[in-house]
Amino acid sequence: MADTVFQKIIDGAIAAHKIYEDERVLAFLDIGPLSRGHTLVIPKERAETLDQLSEESAAALGRVLPRLCRAVIEATGVRHYNVLENNGRSAHQMVAHVHFHIIPKPNEREGLGVGWPAGSLGNDAAELAANIRAALR
Amino acid sequence: MADTVFQKIIDGAIAAHKIYEDERVLAFLDIGPLSRGHTLVIPKERAETLDQLSEESAAALGRVLPRLCRAVIEATGVRHYNVLENNGRSAHQMVAHVHFHIIPKPNEREGLGVGWPAGSLGNDAAELAANIRAALR
Repeated sequence: MADTVFQKIIDGAIAAHKIYEDERVLAFLDIGPLSRGHTLVIPKERAETLDQLSEESAAALGRVLPRLCRAVIEATGVRHYNVLENNGRSAHQMVAHVHFHIIPKPNEREGLGVGWPAGSLGNDAAELAANIRAALR
Repeated sequence: MADTVFQKIIDGAIAAHKIYEDERVLAFLDIGPLSRGHTLVIPKERAETLDQLSEESAAALGRVLPRLCRAVIEATGVRHYNVLENNGRSAHQMVAHVHFHIIPKPNEREGLGVGWPAGSLGNDAAELAANIRAALR
């Protein structure tokens, strides 16, 4: 399988505006930002989707998110933001390597557009929760 | 400040269809799901936005996400999904307690609607990255 653009950034084969790096995690500016300061946070581990990522990488990535969010807020002056991680093409994933977006929401027009077709829990909610709990084991 | 509905769920004052619980993290079904299996993952720590959350809670939450995503996939049969965490009302945050959504994307109509008004990096990208790096220190 060919390396993704993010793998090439990890390997140093492609340049990026890097913001943070440690043993397991890399953060850099998105080249197609939804708003100024739009930042990507990725694990160095090769994993296409979050369900395939190791707990160690996921914990390392989670740990650094608050600090990165504070830095993006401070540098942009924008206090509201979305953190988004897409899995699969129909869920808008464009690069086959796990990436968390930090997307400042400066106004209605810029930043992430959120569509929210909320429903309600069906009669099978207790059964559904039990099924998810069972799948955790 | 009044307790949020999520604080009441943590405290056991309001029922929820719980999926997972450990010392730092709680997961349960969203009562206004965007799709079947829509799950919320929250820290027990009181924090309104991700930038205010401790690294310990953020790491614990990150660690359990892959496992929860796998369980939601297995129980729903839907492989594509979005993980979303909103901060601030203009970024669609509705409850003032950090929460990560795991939202299955079964089809075009159900699940998260994603609006993506992509731009491009401006001439100030290097300066912007430097400013975010400086804010990290």
